[in-house]
Amino acid sequence: MPRSNPEASDRSKTETDFGTDFLQLDVSLAPLGGLAGWLTEQLRAAIADGRLPMGSRVPPGRVLADELRVSRGVVTEAYQRLIEDGQLAGRGRAGTFVVAAPISPGISGQASERKVPRTDFAAAPGHDVFDALRASPARIDLTPGVPDLAAFPRSAWLRAERRVLDALDPAAFGYGDPRGAPPFRRAVADWLARNRGIRVEAEDVVIVTGVAQALDLVSRVLLDDGIEEIAVEDPGSLGVRQHLASRRLRTPPIPVDQAGLRVDALRESGASVVALTPAHQFPTGVVLDGRRRRELVKWAQDEGGLILEDDYDAEHRYDRPPVPAVHALLPERVFYTGSVSKTLAPALRVGWLIAPPSHREAVVIAKRYADLGNAVLPQLVLTELMECGELERHLRMLRRRHRRRRDAMIEAIRTQLPQARIHGAAAGLHLTITFDAGFRDTDLAAAALEHGVKTQPLSWHHQLSSEPGLVLGYAASPPADTARGIALLRKALRQVLPGQL
Amino acid sequence: MPRSNPEASDRSKTETDFGTDFLQLDVSLAPLGGLAGWLTEQLRAAIADGRLPMGSRVPPGRVLADELRVSRGVVTEAYQRLIEDGQLAGRGRAGTFVVAAPISPGISGQASERKVPRTDFAAAPGHDVFDALRASPARIDLTPGVPDLAAFPRSAWLRAERRVLDALDPAAFGYGDPRGAPPFRRAVADWLARNRGIRVEAEDVVIVTGVAQALDLVSRVLLDDGIEEIAVEDPGSLGVRQHLASRRLRTPPIPVDQAGLRVDALRESGASVVALTPAHQFPTGVVLDGRRRRELVKWAQDEGGLILEDDYDAEHRYDRPPVPAVHALLPERVFYTGSVSKTLAPALRVGWLIAPPSHREAVVIAKRYADLGNAVLPQLVLTELMECGELERHLRMLRRRHRRRRDAMIEAIRTQLPQARIHGAAAGLHLTITFDAGFRDTDLAAAALEHGVKTQPLSWHHQLSSEPGLVLGYAASPPADTARGIALLRKALRQVLPGQL
Repeated sequence: MPRSNPEASDRSKTETDFGTDFLQLDVSLAPLGGLAGWLTEQLRAAIADGRLPMGSRVPPGRVLADELRVSRGVVTEAYQRLIEDGQLAGRGRAGTFVVAAPISPGISGQASERKVPRTDFAAAPGHDVFDALRASPARIDLTPGVPDLAAFPRSAWLRAERRVLDALDPAAFGYGDPRGAPPFRRAVADWLARNRGIRVEAEDVVIVTGVAQALDLVSRVLLDDGIEEIAVEDPGSLGVRQHLASRRLRTPPIPVDQAGLRVDALRESGASVVALTPAHQFPTGVVLDGRRRRELVKWAQDEGGLILEDDYDAEHRYDRPPVPAVHALLPERVFYTGSVSKTLAPALRVGWLIAPPSHREAVVIAKRYADLGNAVLPQLVLTELMECGELERHLRMLRRRHRRRRDAMIEAIRTQLPQARIHGAAAGLHLTITFDAGFRDTDLAAAALEHGVKTQPLSWHHQLSSEPGLVLGYAASPPADTARGIALLRKALRQVLPGQL
Repeated sequence: MPRSNPEASDRSKTETDFGTDFLQLDVSLAPLGGLAGWLTEQLRAAIADGRLPMGSRVPPGRVLADELRVSRGVVTEAYQRLIEDGQLAGRGRAGTFVVAAPISPGISGQASERKVPRTDFAAAPGHDVFDALRASPARIDLTPGVPDLAAFPRSAWLRAERRVLDALDPAAFGYGDPRGAPPFRRAVADWLARNRGIRVEAEDVVIVTGVAQALDLVSRVLLDDGIEEIAVEDPGSLGVRQHLASRRLRTPPIPVDQAGLRVDALRESGASVVALTPAHQFPTGVVLDGRRRRELVKWAQDEGGLILEDDYDAEHRYDRPPVPAVHALLPERVFYTGSVSKTLAPALRVGWLIAPPSHREAVVIAKRYADLGNAVLPQLVLTELMECGELERHLRMLRRRHRRRRDAMIEAIRTQLPQARIHGAAAGLHLTITFDAGFRDTDLAAAALEHGVKTQPLSWHHQLSSEPGLVLGYAASPPADTARGIALLRKALRQVLPGQL
């Protein structure tokens, strides 16, 4: 809703972070004598439908009172009620902020205001399946894929950014090298050497906006080579499969067993490219073992095959030694990709891609035409965090915390869902549970969502048939939430399997 | 060059922003008695080849002296020489920083260390033409396309980022809406309403990483529609043409005259999509006039045509009223795109794309599979800067400064290059000069580069034949540099056209 006040930008800053036109409050609609209650509901609706988004500052009480022509006490009262409800929080002189959306979707009036995607577990997963699940209201989010986001090192980030801005040459604000900022490419090469046993030069690293973009760039250069299919693990990431399919690449499924990808099946498939997650298979958590690694290398050598190694959460391990990257064995046949999404935050949209020499130039061209290169400031901030050891400190802290959260989830599952088998808990940010009983795991996920718990059904990540299961992230939730979530899963399972519990 | 010290991350931060292994200094190679001179040259080479990148902090003198086992005075002396040369600068307690690379490429030893692209004006422009020109050494950069980068509001940016980080909900660090952060989409909608007369809802805005990505996304959805060509202006941006061609789209050229794109020629071409820069045509600076606008709208209505409006520097105008966006006339047939590259900095990689309703969903899907959405923090920082009026203040300041710089360039051209005709100086960040004489403007640009001045030959931006010319950016250079650059251009012209001056 564009604001119409052309002077807005000339008013002094402390007063006008917000106009209030966007709230579209019409005080003539308020019931007589119920102004504060009316205003509370209006603000709650504005929070629910995003006009007052999470993290935003609400207008100063004086400003809102003036614009509505109500007494300041009415506004104070409404804010106080929302603070008590946990939707607003005062932060002293900084103002009052939106800190949580209302839980009940009934209050929000969202549907009439804007199209919010809905999770329909009964349907085949569509393009917006992950957005829809993210947007679904639920008290407890056990979907996989993110680290503890509350641990993001805000102060260290800001300090590093200050150092970067203090020293930055103005020319660095211009168009840059599409491959990424040279200092960051060097820092990433160092990081991969220290943490993943990968020996590459800074020149070999292309900075991308994450594994999603890496998939897109690799797809593009392989399509130009005449490649029409990329074999994928089964089970394997639905998201990866969707990305490849969006490029019109076929994704023949290759079964995964306890030793990882079945290389014999890969060989039989006739595919010349395979995408896989060798360090911690998604979603099973299996490690590609030594024999399979040797088989995979031999396959690539025999067949001229290419390997797309998605090292998505290799930094997180608890009960086992580090697993080296396949790239270290066969750099001339491997596209290697990783990101800071699992060590810091997906919202940073920063990752890296190392292409085999045969495709290096094509990848740089693809990156150039995709977006001319990543934003510079975040790359330089990350350089600082990597070079001063801050990122490694953060990762050690996360590992300890995630391990406790994992233990809490395992304990809750053993207690509440004894019939579930647990897979892949030795590393990563999630685990998978499966059930012997025959039911549709999409029904279970749907029932769980009704109880206020978000999960992903295992079948989303399967092209071949499989036992029912769920993929459960533990890293982002405090242990108490996890325990509560698993207890609610028990109720959901009872609905899906009446008489079994 | 990966560092091998595994303890680097455990050393205390104040001491170890840098190890010095990466400098690979072997003091045994120094001539006897010439330690300081030797170290100066080694550091200069490290700056030139990027081991000590621009903006980086050099190791504290004490640390470097310890590691090299030389006296601290040797290091101090070497740093002092580089400070006097303008390559290092002390910043008090923050340390000593690299602020400029050595000018002479001979000193750097770059060629042996890494592949640096070279500008070959004699060849047809390749994929890396702009990267190569950017990397070419030259004292004065008169290439078009960037605002005054020294004016980037570093303090305001950092303050806004602090406010954002103080208030941010942890969930915002996760995966977000691929269309962009809701508050920023609203801020962009407001910005476009205030500054460009465009009335859209926040829901209509997709945040992208710049006009380059917008071109890529639009290309993708149009290719899916079976579109095989997008007509472009002639002259028109080489970069845009390269982006479209990288998607295998043909780019039939449509002539531009003093009233803008020749819509009659567009109609004759049979193309169903046209990309153009109506507010300030690149590179001629012509405005699409009222009659042509009406013709263009009629063309789109008659033919079901689609318009890709690149509003790349519409915010910069000096001697004329604002020109409304074509989007405002025909929102149902226009893809509208713009960015902060010309108002703040290209290095931010933030822009927006508004698709017509017919292609809105397809654009969102394309953005999702391209990169899952822009990084969140910069979007929220920009929201703050837009909503508190900071960006508009910055733009007013830039306009005044750019106007003075433009006037300085015009003055210098009139004095030094009286035979040049000046075009398109009423707005934007660049102007174009043309010559009646017959010569190859690529020869002129090459001669200018030899004299230390970077420019773009006009013929790069032509598919059809044209008079020779240069495209000259004035916004990024102080008037004294511009004057010196134009004086050097006079020398270059004399080489290309002996006897004419």
